[in-house]
Parts: sequence; C-alpha cells; structure tokens
Amino acid sequence: MTPAPRVAFIGLGIMGLPMARNLRAAGFSVVGHNRSPARATEFAGGGGETSDTIQGAVVGADVVALMLPDSPDVEQVLTGPDGVFGQVRPGTLVIDFSTIHPDVARAMAEEGVRVGVEVLDAPVSGGEPGAVEGSLSIMVGGSDHAFESASDVLNAVGRTIVHVGPAGAGQTVKAANQLIVAGTIELVAESMALLEASGLDVAAALQVLKGGLAGSAVLERKSGAMTRRDYAPGFRLDLHHKDLGIALDVARERGVATPLGALTAQLVAALVAQGKGNRDHSALFALVEELSGRDAD
Amino acid sequence: MTPAPRVAFIGLGIMGLPMARNLRAAGFSVVGHNRSPARATEFAGGGGETSDTIQGAVVGADVVALMLPDSPDVEQVLTGPDGVFGQVRPGTLVIDFSTIHPDVARAMAEEGVRVGVEVLDAPVSGGEPGAVEGSLSIMVGGSDHAFESASDVLNAVGRTIVHVGPAGAGQTVKAANQLIVAGTIELVAESMALLEASGLDVAAALQVLKGGLAGSAVLERKSGAMTRRDYAPGFRLDLHHKDLGIALDVARERGVATPLGALTAQLVAALVAQGKGNRDHSALFALVEELSGRDAD
Repeated sequence: MTPAPRVAFIGLGIMGLPMARNLRAAGFSVVGHNRSPARATEFAGGGGETSDTIQGAVVGADVVALMLPDSPDVEQVLTGPDGVFGQVRPGTLVIDFSTIHPDVARAMAEEGVRVGVEVLDAPVSGGEPGAVEGSLSIMVGGSDHAFESASDVLNAVGRTIVHVGPAGAGQTVKAANQLIVAGTIELVAESMALLEASGLDVAAALQVLKGGLAGSAVLERKSGAMTRRDYAPGFRLDLHHKDLGIALDVARERGVATPLGALTAQLVAALVAQGKGNRDHSALFALVEELSGRDAD
Repeated sequence: MTPAPRVAFIGLGIMGLPMARNLRAAGFSVVGHNRSPARATEFAGGGGETSDTIQGAVVGADVVALMLPDSPDVEQVLTGPDGVFGQVRPGTLVIDFSTIHPDVARAMAEEGVRVGVEVLDAPVSGGEPGAVEGSLSIMVGGSDHAFESASDVLNAVGRTIVHVGPAGAGQTVKAANQLIVAGTIELVAESMALLEASGLDVAAALQVLKGGLAGSAVLERKSGAMTRRDYAPGFRLDLHHKDLGIALDVARERGVATPLGALTAQLVAALVAQGKGNRDHSALFALVEELSGRDAD
C-alpha cells in the first residue's frame, strides 16, 4: 500500500480551513499552516496536523496548496525568505487557490520552473458554503501535466473543475467571474429596493424573478440575506474590492471596455471607504438603500 | 358537457402567437386578432380561428388576452373607439400579458371596474422559447378573485405563475426583472470580451462561470449566441429600451437609486440610436466590442 499523498495547506481562513478538512476527509495526509495561529489551532482541534512554519508544513509534501488573501501574500509565501520555493524538492506541485493578479500567477509559474516546481493557478468560486460542501467551481491555469497531477486534490474540494488555459488563465477567468458576481449583486440590490419601495409581495416577486431570465445564483443565494439585512460574511467586500481592482486592471491591459464593471467597482469602493469592508458583498444593498434615503444603518 | 371557455387573443407577435397556440392545445376555443394581418394568417394556417376586428374577436369571449408592444397600444385596444371595454359583456376577464407602465396597468384596471370587467396585469419572462414551450414565468397583479379565475389560462402558457400584489404590481416586478436581465447581459458581455481578449479557452471558461456564483439564466441562454455573434431576436433591443424606460421611471417615482440600471439603459439606448433596435438584447456584446476597438460590424 502506498502512503497517502502528503499535502501542505497554507492559509486556513474562511475558505482554506474547510478545504483542508475536505482533503483530510478524502484521505490525504494534510499539514496545515496559518500565519495567525488561531486558525491552525482550529484545524488541529479537528484532528489535523499543523506546523508553525512554512518549512515544517512543506517538508516531504507532494502538493503545496495555498489559499491566501492577495498577490503580495502569495509572492511572499512562495518566493520570500523561508518561502516554499526554497524548501520543497523538485517535482512538488503547487496549487494556488488564492485569487490574485494573472500577471503574478504567471510570474510565480515562471519562478517555479526555475526550481523544478509546477504551479497551477486554481482560484475558486462558490464561497464558504462551497468550500464546506466541497462543491467549489475551480478555474485552473497551467500545463496539462500539472492539471492531470492535481486531479485528486481538485476533486476533493470542488465539483466543477475546468482547465481554462496556461498559467494565469485561471486568474483571468476568476476576474471575469468576480466582475459578473459583484455586478449581479448590485442589480439584484437595485431591484430589491424597487420592489420593497412598491409595497408588493417581495417574497412572491423574488420567486417569479428566480424562474425567468432574471434568475441567477446570486438571486438564489443572496436575496434572502438582503431581505434580512444580514451582511455577515460570506465573502467580504474588501476582498471583492481587491478582486475588482484586478478585473479592471486586466480589462485595461487587454483594452476591453467594462462600463458596468467599473461602476460596480466604484460602489464597492464606496462601501470599503465607509469602513464596511468586513461585511458580506451583499451589503451593496445597504448602499442602494442609503442612496435612496432608506438607510437602516 | 360545458363548452370550452372562449378566449380572444389580441396581439399575435413573437410571443402572442405561440401563447395563443398553447391555449388552443390546452382545449380553449381561441379567436385571434392582430393589427397587421400576416400574423393572423399564420395563426389561421395552424387551424386557429381569427377575426379582422377586435369586436369580432371578443364577442362571446370569457377571457380577453392581450400581448401588445407598449402602454399606448394597450390603452388603445382596451379604451379606444371600438375597443375591448366597449364590446365585452360584464364579467369578462381581461388578462394583459403586455409589458407596460404600472401606472397604465392600474388605470386600465380602474377603467375596467367601470364596465364590470376585471383586469389582470400579467407580464411574462422567458422569451420566445418560453412562449413556445408554455414555460413562461408570469408575474400577476390584480384581485385574488381575478387571479383565481385566470388560473387555467395562465397554466396553459406559463410554468412559474405568481400573484405578486394588486393591479400594477405585476408590471412593477416585470420592470425589476428587465433591469436585472439587461444588466446581466451587459455584465456577461463585458466578461466575454475580457475572456476573448485574453486568448484562453472561452468555452471552458463559460462552463466554469456557469457552475459558480456568476451563474445565471442569461449566461446559460445568451453566451452561446454572443460567441457566434448571432443577434437574431429573441427579444428586441427596442422593446428592452422601452422596458428600461419604464423601470427607471418607476424607480424615480419611488425614490430608488438604480445606478447600474441607469447605465445599462444608456448602453441599450446607444444601440437603439445606432439603428440596431431590431437585434436581440444580447447585441449589447456588439457595443462592448465596438467600445473596445474589436468591432466586427
């Protein structure tokens, strides 16, 4: 019997912790590492192995998985002093589930080649529920060989897993995803405000909207929380703010006009500037209410 | 055996004709009328009964169904000289499937009361495929009694049928629906342009976008046509332009801010001003391409 493949999981946040748990449940030997130790303690409390250092987590690992907030975090963890690239043996596979700039993803893949490590960018969609259920959508950029090698790990944490192109392509698709998601939340928020202001049966209206061409995953999963003004994350506005910055930057680089994406980014930026970045992105509804003089804050 | 209920169907356009056919298939006795005779001829060719005049269509009708382009058409057909309200017997039920201004829907319901006729506003979503399949979503405003009386007719043409409030409420929900639909098409168009400009596997990217929080009926039903630049309607931009005018007008009346709705309306208006109002609303993609210097026109 061959031993279970060994996965180092770096970044045990809202998304990373349940993903690491799902890898354990799927039979992988998982060592978790988190910058702030509280989350690592939580992983350990569920029986997971942890390490205080990146080096301790990645030693002997077949796969190093990352789930980190932003591009600089990924750069630091991979290429910084005591970073992954200086610790792992050649042939190790790095799967970066973080949402970062495609240019950084490409640069990390190129750096990896120099130390004999293949890197996949594998950002996810589906939020905390998807991470807990192991039902994430995963958009993967990188070589065919690396994608095939990652198959068991990806299947343990996701359901819709698609290889979309070379290094960086996963991040480009994630940028498009985040543009659509934030914009759709804002459209649903504007429509909800319109319905509530009209004194009709909002629950019935939402039911019929879900059944037609206006139907969306956002309408299914976010309209209930909007109705209750429950903005506990979920997915934080400050992360979506970061993601829309990436999306608009990529669009500018490619020469693509994104008028609705740009306006949505402004509205998200306004909420972050108001100090509300720790709320769920469905809090765009709170801004619509404020702009409409219906502020409940 | 009681005779089949008799339905007059006024307005045999892209939506009305298949809806009238589904009513016949469900066992109703249907008499169709259309302002321009070609569509009536098409209904007659399928075995349907037709009349050249509103009077001829509505005589003896239990239900008068309308599917007309805009508020003035409905006002004219219901209250104009030789209009429905002057022809029908008290107790007739009018079901207006058209998408019109909620204020006009309320006014028509009030006019109906004066001649002993109940009027439901019952705008639909689901487009031509939904009309053909009898799977439309229908958002209904009016009295409980009228809604119950309309049940068999509504079930013959739709699948998701919801009573959302009093007269006009159906139109308000439809306005919200159209705001979401147009905005979502624009968001998908901007994202498609971003993906195509990035040289990755667009089909694979669309697959993964559909599986996550970016998923929507628009992404499912419109992204293929965008990929092929196939802008045959479907649902014409000039009708969506009219609908967004209603949505923004209602939002202004209610004091609700709709920044994304307003910008989307501007983009739709630009296409209409360019003489492209006869294209499907998915042609918002053509405008994004033009704004991005990727114009294929």
